[in-house]
Order: sequence, then structure tokens, then C-alpha cells
Amino acid sequence: MNDNGEPGIPTDAASALLEELQAVLAHEIPASKALGIRPLRYDGTQLALAAPLAPNLNHKQTAFGGSLYCAAVLAGWGLLHLFLRRRLERGHPHAHIVIQQADIDYRHPVNTDFEAVCRWPAHVDGERLLRMLARHGRARAELDVYIGPDSEPAVIFRGRYVIHTGTSPDLHAAP
Amino acid sequence: MNDNGEPGIPTDAASALLEELQAVLAHEIPASKALGIRPLRYDGTQLALAAPLAPNLNHKQTAFGGSLYCAAVLAGWGLLHLFLRRRLERGHPHAHIVIQQADIDYRHPVNTDFEAVCRWPAHVDGERLLRMLARHGRARAELDVYIGPDSEPAVIFRGRYVIHTGTSPDLHAAP
Repeated sequence: MNDNGEPGIPTDAASALLEELQAVLAHEIPASKALGIRPLRYDGTQLALAAPLAPNLNHKQTAFGGSLYCAAVLAGWGLLHLFLRRRLERGHPHAHIVIQQADIDYRHPVNTDFEAVCRWPAHVDGERLLRMLARHGRARAELDVYIGPDSEPAVIFRGRYVIHTGTSPDLHAAP
Repeated sequence: MNDNGEPGIPTDAASALLEELQAVLAHEIPASKALGIRPLRYDGTQLALAAPLAPNLNHKQTAFGGSLYCAAVLAGWGLLHLFLRRRLERGHPHAHIVIQQADIDYRHPVNTDFEAVCRWPAHVDGERLLRMLARHGRARAELDVYIGPDSEPAVIFRGRYVIHTGTSPDLHAAP
């Protein structure tokens, strides 16, 4: 993540966080397991999730748009999860991340195994986000996720996530 | 569907089409099977897909936002599929339906088994759509899908679908 001056994290720490995220996804979001979506790379700034094509095929033998969405929404969720995990030590027991709104643009077919990549955006100030969360019990972040080559993404996803520390009945609970 | 004067179809025909759609989804989009998404009701105007909560849970014990998206995108796709299936007899062998762009709004958590309902919209003229398809090999439709009570939907999805009869390499192949 941008992390305001924290350029990256040691490889060991990143590996441990990736493994932890894999366990969280596998145990808490069974659909991710069913679709074979798993954390692949994390460097403190950027998270990549990988998914195999086979369980995610559509009728045209390319990737199902719903599966592409799942990988994307989880990449954004995962990046925020790891941010909170690192900043709040052992995680804030009551900090939940939910998706509030998203749009997705399918530009090219995906006909191989694929990766959904989410990079901490320059416009999201991590420190401010944590201050908002501490003060108001709630903060918001818009994250972009790309699938396919940087030069010409196959899929562009933008999701508005809400992090909250209380139990707000008005908040949908996703992803 | 609105179907321009075709108010509905006999129950037997609707049942047969539902079964056919179930087979298409199960065989051609394995992710739908993994998530337990299946056709539930069709009356010629409206298609409902059902999904169980269990395989679609998230970390908050409500429905995963990605699963809700999958059910929604397939409801729109299924309604167009059945429209073409009925109008083009045995289906047009080269008519493909793909999702081009979508947005989704999560308004309330979903904490039960759920249904994604897509109704043929008044602004989409089925006859015109078929004429476009015959003339240009391509037509477009925007469909809304709702999950949750009509009075207060939990999820609102809007997808822009493209139907095409050729092999257009620029068309992403989803869902």
C-alpha cells in the first residue's frame, strides 16, 4: 500500500500475511475456494489474487464475468484487510470491510488463468482512513482492480468499500 | 418478457425452458453450479434464479457480494437466453450473449437463501432487438436485476448485455 512513507514490507512478513489471507478467504468465504481464487502476491502496496480458468469458464470457453467480478471484489477487500491487519495489530476485532457499490467494465475476453490486481491508490490516505475509523467508527475507500495486462486491461473494476467498527444494521455485509 | 404483445407462455412450455436453462447453466458455467445458482421461475416476462446462502456466505455470515453479483448477472443473461431461445427457434446457433458493463449497489445485507429477479424492461423492444441482430449481427440491452423484497431491494444490479451473431474478437466473452 501507499502507506504514507512505508514503502514495502519484508518478504517474510508479506508471505506470512498472504498465508493468513488465504486461510481467511478459504474459511470465511467458501465461494472463493469453490472458484479457486487465492492470494498470490503482496508487497505492502499491491495485492494480486490468482484464479484458474477451468472452474470459471463460461459458455464461450472464456472466463465467466461473475467469476472475474468475484476475483476483483476480493482483491480490493483483501488489500484493505491486510492494511488493517498491519496497522491495527492482530486486526481490530470489530473492524469489518464491506462492499457498498461497484462497477465493472469487461473490455476483452479472458481465456487463460487470471490475476486480479489491486494497488493502494494515491488518493487514499491510509492515516486519514484510520483517523476516520477511530473517530467515527466508519471510513470509506474507493479501490480499482485490474485483470489482464497493465497496458490493456481485460477487466476494470471499481469498488466503494466501507470499513466500520460497530454493528451498523444499515450496512450490507459483503463481500 | 414484454415480448410486444405476447403476454406469457403456457406453464408446460415455461417449465421445459426452465429445465433447459438449468442444463445450460450447469454444463456451460460450472461456477453457477459451485455456487448453487439455479433457475426457479419463468413466466415469459420474468426470470428468477435462486441460490442457497450456505455456499455463498461471507465473513459476516451474510451473502458474499460476489455471489450476489453472480446470481444477478446470470438472471439477466438467462432472460435474454430464453428470449432468443423462444424467438429464434432452437436458438440461433451463433447468437452469443455477453456482459459488457455492470454496476451493482448493495443496500442491505442478505441473510437468507436469495432470489435474483430480472423482468423484461418496458424500454427494451424485443422486435427491434431482433431486427438489429438480423441487420447488424449485434444488439444491446440494459437489464435490471433485483435481489430482496420489491419494496426495498437488498441489491440492485444493472447490466449492459451485447448479443452478437458473429465472432467478434473485440467482444469479451462473459458471463
